[in-house]
Amino acid sequence: MLISSRDNAKVKHAAKLMRSAKYRRETGQFILEGVRLCADSLMSGFPLLEVLYIPQLREKSPYVLEQLLDKAESACEITPQVAQKIADTESPQGLFCLCKLLDNPSKIDTMDFMGKFLALEGVRDPANVGGMIRTACALGVDAVLLSDCCDVYNPKALRASMGAVLKQPLLQVDDLPVVLEHYNRQGVLTCAALLSDEAQQVQQVDFSGPSLVVIGNEGQGLKEETSNACAKQILIPMDNMESLNAAAAAAILLWEMTAEKRSRRHHTG
Amino acid sequence: MLISSRDNAKVKHAAKLMRSAKYRRETGQFILEGVRLCADSLMSGFPLLEVLYIPQLREKSPYVLEQLLDKAESACEITPQVAQKIADTESPQGLFCLCKLLDNPSKIDTMDFMGKFLALEGVRDPANVGGMIRTACALGVDAVLLSDCCDVYNPKALRASMGAVLKQPLLQVDDLPVVLEHYNRQGVLTCAALLSDEAQQVQQVDFSGPSLVVIGNEGQGLKEETSNACAKQILIPMDNMESLNAAAAAAILLWEMTAEKRSRRHHTG
Repeated sequence: MLISSRDNAKVKHAAKLMRSAKYRRETGQFILEGVRLCADSLMSGFPLLEVLYIPQLREKSPYVLEQLLDKAESACEITPQVAQKIADTESPQGLFCLCKLLDNPSKIDTMDFMGKFLALEGVRDPANVGGMIRTACALGVDAVLLSDCCDVYNPKALRASMGAVLKQPLLQVDDLPVVLEHYNRQGVLTCAALLSDEAQQVQQVDFSGPSLVVIGNEGQGLKEETSNACAKQILIPMDNMESLNAAAAAAILLWEMTAEKRSRRHHTG
Repeated sequence: MLISSRDNAKVKHAAKLMRSAKYRRETGQFILEGVRLCADSLMSGFPLLEVLYIPQLREKSPYVLEQLLDKAESACEITPQVAQKIADTESPQGLFCLCKLLDNPSKIDTMDFMGKFLALEGVRDPANVGGMIRTACALGVDAVLLSDCCDVYNPKALRASMGAVLKQPLLQVDDLPVVLEHYNRQGVLTCAALLSDEAQQVQQVDFSGPSLVVIGNEGQGLKEETSNACAKQILIPMDNMESLNAAAAAAILLWEMTAEKRSRRHHTG
C-alpha cells in the first residue's frame, strides 16, 4: 500500500506525533525520523509499531529497511510529498518509525543509587537537552533525571541526542528537591552547578563515590530549593566570561564526575 | 536625525554588514546587535564607527547608550521598522553598532608561542565557532587559530560567543599544517583531536608546557595533513556513543589542556 494523500489518517497521526508533546503523551507514542535514528531504534527496547518509508529507500538503505520491516508490527510506503508533510527536517530522507513510549520506571523505591547521575532542571531547549543526554551517554553516566524539561521525544531533542535518548536510562522526576533528599540519604554526593563564587571549584570535588550533578536552565539557573537540597554547590572556574553555554558546562561537569571511572578502567585494563 | 526609510543608504549598508561576510571583508567593517554585545564592544579595541538606535533606548538602556554615543564617531536614530530590517533576530532590541575590523595580526614572526592555544579547522557552523570561542575565552586559552572556518563576525557567531569574539585573541591562518610545524619547532605540544581508537586518551596527555589542540569539522574531522602535522593524536574516551557534539568535545579538551593553569593558581593563591 502506497499512501499519497497528505490527508490520510496515518499521515496526520504521524505529523502530529512529530509536532505535539501533548499528543505524544496522550497516545503513548513517538516518532523517529531518518535512517540513523530509525536504525538506533533497532537496538533499543522501544516497541516498533509502524514504519513509513518512501519506495526509494529499498535501494538507498536496504539493510536498515529490511531489519525495520522485520521488527515492525506494520509498514506503509509513502510518497516524497507525504514524507515532507510528516518531516521535521527540510530535506527528509523519507523514513519514519512510530514507537511506543515505555512506562516511566522512575519510582523512588526502584531507583538505583550506585553510580553517576545527571539531573536537569527546567532546560527547555530541545537541542540543549538532547545534547546533554548525548554527552551523558558518551561519558558513561548511569541515568539522567529530568525535571520540568522539554519533552525528550521532541524531534529536535532526538536528533541532537544522536540517538542517546533511545539508549540512556532517563527518569522523569516531579519533585526534584524531594528526590535529591532521597539520594542524599542513600549516600550519593549531590552537587548543584552554580555560577556563584562561593561554590566549590569542580576540579576540587571528590567524585570517587556515587555522585549526582544538577544543571539548571541556562538563563535562570537552578531553583533555590533545588540548590539547597544538594549536599554541595559547585562551579566551573572561569577567566574572562560570566558563563559557558549549557552543552559546554555539562560536558566539563560530567567529565570531572566520571574521571575516576576512566582512571580505574585504565589501571585495571 | 531619525531614519524611517528602509531604503536609506545607511540602513542598506547596515543590513548588508549583517548578512554578507564578503561585504564585511570588502568594507572592513562589521555590525553588532543588541544591548549586551554593543556594551561588550566598549571594552574591546574595535573602533566604533556608528551607533544606530531606536529612541526608546534612551529610557530602556540610558547608561549603555550614553557610553556608546560618547565613543562612536557618529550616531543615528532609527524607527523600529528600520531596526527590524537590519536585525538578525526576530525581536530586535533596536540597538546596533558598526565597528571597524582590525588588521589581522597573525604573522608567524609576531606570534607568541608560550601558553595554551586552540585551533579550529573547517568549522562552518557559526553557533559552533562562536560557542567554542566562548569556551576558550572562559577557560583562559591564550589565542584561537581559525583555518577555513565561518566568519566570526557573522551575527550568529557573535551571539553564540556572548561577546568572546570581541575579547579573545583570534588568528586567521591560511596554511594550518605549516603553522603547526612552526609551533612544533617552538616547543609547543600540538595535539590533533581525533575519534580514532589509536589516539592517546586526553586525560593521559601531559599539558604542563605550552600546548595547542586542533579541532576539526564535526562531520569530516581534521584533514589528514593537519593531523599529521601535529606531534600527538588525542581522543576523548567514550562509552556508548561514537562522538560528542562539537561544543562538548571542545569544552572537555580545553578543560584538560588548561587544568595545570588552574591547579597552579590554586596552589599559589
